[in-house]
Order: sequence, then structure tokens, then C-alpha cells
Amino acid sequence: MTTSTHETEIVADARVPLVRITRTFDAPPAKVFRAHTDPDLLVQWLGPRDTEMQINYFDCRTGGSYRYLHSRCDGMEAAFRGCFHEVRPSELIVQTFTYEGFPDGVALERVVFEDLGDGRTLLTSTSLVDTFEDRDAFLASGMEVGVREGYERLDEVLAG
Amino acid sequence: MTTSTHETEIVADARVPLVRITRTFDAPPAKVFRAHTDPDLLVQWLGPRDTEMQINYFDCRTGGSYRYLHSRCDGMEAAFRGCFHEVRPSELIVQTFTYEGFPDGVALERVVFEDLGDGRTLLTSTSLVDTFEDRDAFLASGMEVGVREGYERLDEVLAG
Repeated sequence: MTTSTHETEIVADARVPLVRITRTFDAPPAKVFRAHTDPDLLVQWLGPRDTEMQINYFDCRTGGSYRYLHSRCDGMEAAFRGCFHEVRPSELIVQTFTYEGFPDGVALERVVFEDLGDGRTLLTSTSLVDTFEDRDAFLASGMEVGVREGYERLDEVLAG
Repeated sequence: MTTSTHETEIVADARVPLVRITRTFDAPPAKVFRAHTDPDLLVQWLGPRDTEMQINYFDCRTGGSYRYLHSRCDGMEAAFRGCFHEVRPSELIVQTFTYEGFPDGVALERVVFEDLGDGRTLLTSTSLVDTFEDRDAFLASGMEVGVREGYERLDEVLAG
């Protein structure tokens, strides 16, 4: 299997406490969208390579909600949860996101699937919080490794 | 019925695109919370005096969702919807919020119920969006009248 790896761009917005992540995938929007909404596909790619993902519930529709667990062989465990504000097939997912280790922190996330033609998709994922301190702590948390590795794994799922 | 009317403060945050609304009520947190979560009470106060509120669904629990309609006798109608990220009895509601006339706009809202003692509650409600332009348009939309009148009506519900 040969997959061209596209660059993942992670940018801290200058004006608002938001992180913007962009990444191109060699698959059409419907296929990239399905990999975000089908739990059986999601567990194959979300998060860094050294973690196992376990889904408690994942009802990916407007008004649904989710919770999942990431665990590493060294015993590290992290749980995440939120609700789906809007899910528009092949176009958009708007959801909330909380890392349960920091239960009062909530991000508003928006994932946009844009058709680039030729079977390619531009994914833009934004994460908005209410202070620059929390945004910068999120960026400094090592999330970058998880995002880049996760999208490399997603390349593999899409090529499979 | 005599109700002392407390002042409603509406402040635009200087650093982030957020509006912060604070208001004291002469009722304990459990009672003010119930008026936010019980649909039969909510329809009696949410919004300006000249509107009727009709609830399509209002499942106010962590992971639930809602949709409601405000209508005026002149025929004006506005629909609002979102999901409940977290509902902690008598303490906190975190939810998303969209005015369907502007379907791509989403606010992350947090309502905190703080016990001031002596049967009084300080309500702090924040609304976060991803641009200052959208925040300022929200402030300029006439929302102030609806918020102030709504809280005066809530005084009456709490005293009733």
C-alpha cells in the first residue's frame, strides 16, 4: 500500500482562542466523513499510534452524544466526551469536547469536509475555547503528535 | 406580589468573543435551576414579553438536545436549537445554541448557578462564538431587551 502523506497544519489563531487544523486526504468527502462517523472505522485511526481506543457510546447525529477512552499499554487512560450539535453528511460536524481529566474545560469543535475534486478532501478542524491560556495549554499538551499520527492512520484506513 | 428587580449586567469581554450576563435572583439555586430545566416553567419566562414560546423538544440532561420557537402576534417567528453538553443539577448548564435564521452560527453557552445564601442566587451566563464580528452582531441584535424582560418574567415565576 502506498499512501502519499499530506502535511498537517496546526495554527493558533491570532485574534481568538481557537486552534485550526487543516489536512488534505486522498479520498472523497463521503469516505472521509464516514471514517469520522462510523465507530468501527473511527477506532482504527483516532489518536496516536500507541493508544487503544474504546468507545462507550458514539451516536453521531444532530442531537446525539459520545464518550470514548484512550488507553496505552503503560496504563495511561484518558476519557473524552461531548454532544453533537450538528451533523451534515459529507459536509460538517459541530460538536462539543471535554477531556474528563479537566472536566470544566469545554471546546466547541467544527470539522468541515471540503471537496477538492479528483477524489481529494480538505479537512478543516477548529477548536474554540474561552481563554487563550486554555488554548495554549491544549497546544502545549502534546496534542500535535496525536493529531499528526491519527491522520497518518486515517490515510491508511482510507487506502484500505 | 412584590418582587425586587435586580439589575441585569451584559458585558462584552475585552479579550475573547464572549458575552457575559450576570443577574441576581431572590430564590435558591435549586429553584432557579428548575426554572431553566422544566419546560413548563421555561415557557413562562424565556424571551421578551411580546413573544409566545413553543417547545418542540427539550431534553435537559447531559447528552440531550432542544429546539424551541418564539413567535409574536405580528407573525415574526424564530427557531433556536442546540445540544446539552453538561447539566449538573443546581450548579451548571453547558449547551450549544443556534438561531436557525443564521444556521452556521453556533454559540457555546455556560450558565452557572451560584448560591449567595439567604435564598438568593447569582446567575452568570456566558456565550462564546468564534469571531468578534458575530459577537458584536449578537449584541446589536436587540438581545438585551429579551434578556432583561425574560429575567423580569423569571422573577415573577420564582415569586409565584
